Amino acid sequence: MTAFARNQWYVAAYAREVGRELLGRTVLDEPILLYRTEDGQAVALSDRCVHRRFPLSQAPSRLDGDRVMCGYHGFTYGTDGRCVFVPGQQRVPRTARLAAYPVVEQDAFVWVWIGDRDPGATVPPRAPWLNSSAYTVVSGMEPIDCDYGLLVDNLMDLSHETYLHGGYIGTPEVAETPITTEVDDGAGIVHVSRHMDDAACPPFYAESTGIEGRITRWQDIEYHAPCLYLLHSRVAPAGAAAPAADGSDPEAFHVEVVYAITPSTQKTTYDFWAVARDFALDDQKVTDYLHANNHTVVMQDVDALNVLQKSLDTEKPGYQELSINIDTGGLAARRILARLAQEGETRAAAPAAGAAR
Amino acid sequence: MTAFARNQWYVAAYAREVGRELLGRTVLDEPILLYRTEDGQAVALSDRCVHRRFPLSQAPSRLDGDRVMCGYHGFTYGTDGRCVFVPGQQRVPRTARLAAYPVVEQDAFVWVWIGDRDPGATVPPRAPWLNSSAYTVVSGMEPIDCDYGLLVDNLMDLSHETYLHGGYIGTPEVAETPITTEVDDGAGIVHVSRHMDDAACPPFYAESTGIEGRITRWQDIEYHAPCLYLLHSRVAPAGAAAPAADGSDPEAFHVEVVYAITPSTQKTTYDFWAVARDFALDDQKVTDYLHANNHTVVMQDVDALNVLQKSLDTEKPGYQELSINIDTGGLAARRILARLAQEGETRAAAPAAGAAR
Amino acid sequence: MTAFARNQWYVAAYAREVGRELLGRTVLDEPILLYRTEDGQAVALSDRCVHRRFPLSQAPSRLDGDRVMCGYHGFTYGTDGRCVFVPGQQRVPRTARLAAYPVVEQDAFVWVWIGDRDPGATVPPRAPWLNSSAYTVVSGMEPIDCDYGLLVDNLMDLSHETYLHGGYIGTPEVAETPITTEVDDGAGIVHVSRHMDDAACPPFYAESTGIEGRITRWQDIEYHAPCLYLLHSRVAPAGAAAPAADGSDPEAFHVEVVYAITPSTQKTTYDFWAVARDFALDDQKVTDYLHANNHTVVMQDVDALNVLQKSLDTEKPGYQELSINIDTGGLAARRILARLAQEGETRAAAPAAGAAR
Repeated sequence: MTAFARNQWYVAAYAREVGRELLGRTVLDEPILLYRTEDGQAVALSDRCVHRRFPLSQAPSRLDGDRVMCGYHGFTYGTDGRCVFVPGQQRVPRTARLAAYPVVEQDAFVWVWIGDRDPGATVPPRAPWLNSSAYTVVSGMEPIDCDYGLLVDNLMDLSHETYLHGGYIGTPEVAETPITTEVDDGAGIVHVSRHMDDAACPPFYAESTGIEGRITRWQDIEYHAPCLYLLHSRVAPAGAAAPAADGSDPEAFHVEVVYAITPSTQKTTYDFWAVARDFALDDQKVTDYLHANNHTVVMQDVDALNVLQKSLDTEKPGYQELSINIDTGGLAARRILARLAQEGETRAAAPAAGAAR
Repeated sequence: MTAFARNQWYVAAYAREVGRELLGRTVLDEPILLYRTEDGQAVALSDRCVHRRFPLSQAPSRLDGDRVMCGYHGFTYGTDGRCVFVPGQQRVPRTARLAAYPVVEQDAFVWVWIGDRDPGATVPPRAPWLNSSAYTVVSGMEPIDCDYGLLVDNLMDLSHETYLHGGYIGTPEVAETPITTEVDDGAGIVHVSRHMDDAACPPFYAESTGIEGRITRWQDIEYHAPCLYLLHSRVAPAGAAAPAADGSDPEAFHVEVVYAITPSTQKTTYDFWAVARDFALDDQKVTDYLHANNHTVVMQDVDALNVLQKSLDTEKPGYQELSINIDTGGLAARRILARLAQEGETRAAAPAAGAAR
Repeated sequence: MTAFARNQWYVAAYAREVGRELLGRTVLDEPILLYRTEDGQAVALSDRCVHRRFPLSQAPSRLDGDRVMCGYHGFTYGTDGRCVFVPGQQRVPRTARLAAYPVVEQDAFVWVWIGDRDPGATVPPRAPWLNSSAYTVVSGMEPIDCDYGLLVDNLMDLSHETYLHGGYIGTPEVAETPITTEVDDGAGIVHVSRHMDDAACPPFYAESTGIEGRITRWQDIEYHAPCLYLLHSRVAPAGAAAPAADGSDPEAFHVEVVYAITPSTQKTTYDFWAVARDFALDDQKVTDYLHANNHTVVMQDVDALNVLQKSLDTEKPGYQELSINIDTGGLAARRILARLAQEGETRAAAPAAGAAR
């Protein structure tokens, strides 16, 4: 199984999911309670009452103003996790305090920091298209019953589009065209590029852009380990001009595909998926088509990864995989994840002086 | 997990559940077959045929007079567990014998003795209201997917009524009013009392007694570890006279709430619940109301404990609880259960001379 | 649990189940892909792509002529298991090869050889009635959630017919009549015979043969460990002539009951069952009756064994069984299975020189 990289930012929810209803999520095996204060601040606390470990996200637990009250015995906590009320006595024990997780709300996501060090100056990576008026977005989240590493593998190697998503976003050229891979080990970023100059146009793009005939199709992956995966997708009629030196690219259609890959437990993963486009911004028909079509594609992955995890669960220890060129990006991602996991644990074992929590 | 206290009496079923149909129950991880002889005696035998371990409570196993015949190969046993027939041969092996459990039928319950010592003079504790013409009873049994210790915790601390059962039997005064706790370690009995002199009347009592306005409400818990929990509940209009010295208490309504808490497996529990009242004895409407309402309350506990067990199952080893004053009774119960569990095992390891089984 | 005997032939499917649709079966914990080439040859390969272990029997994996193409990334394999195509590059790694299992198609079954040695001259045992024009056959397959040893136990001791299948194929005489057992340890064959000269005719035979009144009923079991179980059943009106010296037996009805007992995982088993008769060959009503009735009988076993396995799963280690005369055949089968399991593993640890795989 893929080790968890602690002391990292993870997407716990879409901003739209966090409100005045209590929401429970499990991130890196930690149960997390999410809600929003009356003035709109997102809050992330441990989702277990200190008293008897009842989940605070579970009814009849409820919000009382900005405070959360346990539905079992009424223990009540402030947004900093400090307990402010216990039943049957005036004195609240000083140790009655929930872990409070650092939160950043950014680009339509609520990010939480999982670890025992302070994030310090570390900030989550960006996906600005999800909150930009220059783009229209469809999105969703699907839980998968698999090791999050299987989803990373899946997304880093798009040759699977030809087979698993044939007839949707895959065409023969995806599997045929070699990739180039660049790894920034220090920043923990993997780039995988596949530029197809003369390719069939899959229905996903034909229907949404209106292009007829063959296309130029660029797929530029930018994976910010551990959680954020970006696919910069550029589609233009075959023979269209390349982007200008200033970055302008009027003949092409751009789709920014964003995945947040959040490990929940060792064998369950949250698959946050979003597709932002810079064309047909107000065309609801295109929006509906892309939402339905992309959901279908995501569910093809979900079904395959659920099956794959079940298969791996029955493998004998020490089973073998065989990797080829297409796996270069995925293997680089695995190396970075292994390093991040080790760093997160190592520093945790010997916390820096002045660590905040 | 809460250790099992062996060499103790446990409720295996209501008397009304044990008849001429074979009934299987699992008590302290032991599969038990229950039935009633033609002359009405309750019998408790091991629920596994000695031949190939087929459950005797499973069809097509069946009764043949007072004998039980295995539905797989026809091995047949008498009420003492001794095998009296095997197929294909005349000789019945002498070792072909089911464990037979001592049984006491008392107060609407069938109690069985689980352990390897003889119960000797030890008798089950009493709940006489369940079989008394001076009381009317509603009752039921709900299986819970939790450690039985969670149900003991739940019942020993009634401050949870205010939160988990708010609007049913809980009012603010329950959580606000301090408790007094008395522990009789020798007898294995814990008393927890909460006397509210001026409290809101919850619907449970308003609807059944007809009291309007505020009440005096006494909750006197008497837990006979490990299995029997009694809640002596006294409700009267606020300002009513206290019970007289001779025990008479004409101005008050009395409800005897009885729980038998029977560990089935390490994470499953039988929750036998009964509510006996000394008023409106023949009022079917009150009976129906109390049955429905108490069932709802029990299911609120069942749902909460199912959730809680699932939460605890994902806790890392060595997780912490935080206990406060309201937990005094529950902690005393845990100590007694731990002692009883240890005694049951210790003596089992060195059985007294003359032990019967 | 019953150990697996490797380096043996097992029935993986009925021949009729193997065609141009991909079929996945798990035999002795090994995932196996079955299909038939365009010219009709049955093929058995490992059901896991060498790349990332995706199941080849899982859509959208599919056949391309005689080749199978993985539905995840398009890895493609020939009937010998050798990979002939990978995406994104010309060179196919030499180690990219699926295990290919020796296959024998015989008597309506597809047999596969599970083990690491070559079968050499070892051939599967025969059940020729299943493909003979002198017999009419009804058959099916039921998965059971149990150790395959429980099904072997079940079939070796037919005294259970009297109890578990009472009213279908069981009558009192089955359990009452002693058996004779012969064991050919070298060949791994156990014979158990029960000849009833004057027995009630169970509905199974009354309805299908038309016999009225009592019968002579012979049950001659011939178990070829580990996988093939034959029950030669002879039924004739009581007092009919015995078979002649030349084997002819015109006064009797013959039913050849065939079971293939294939271990799937440690606690799941494929129960292939077939009933071949030498009478009423073209009587569809008899065929329908025997199919429905035998399916009912098989499901009685399936239900009982599912229950039994669940019971055994909760037994404490070192639990005891008690065996009697009726178990002589079953115990002999267990001994042979234990020996075969040990031999399969022993030789595997030190493979003979020249082993082919």
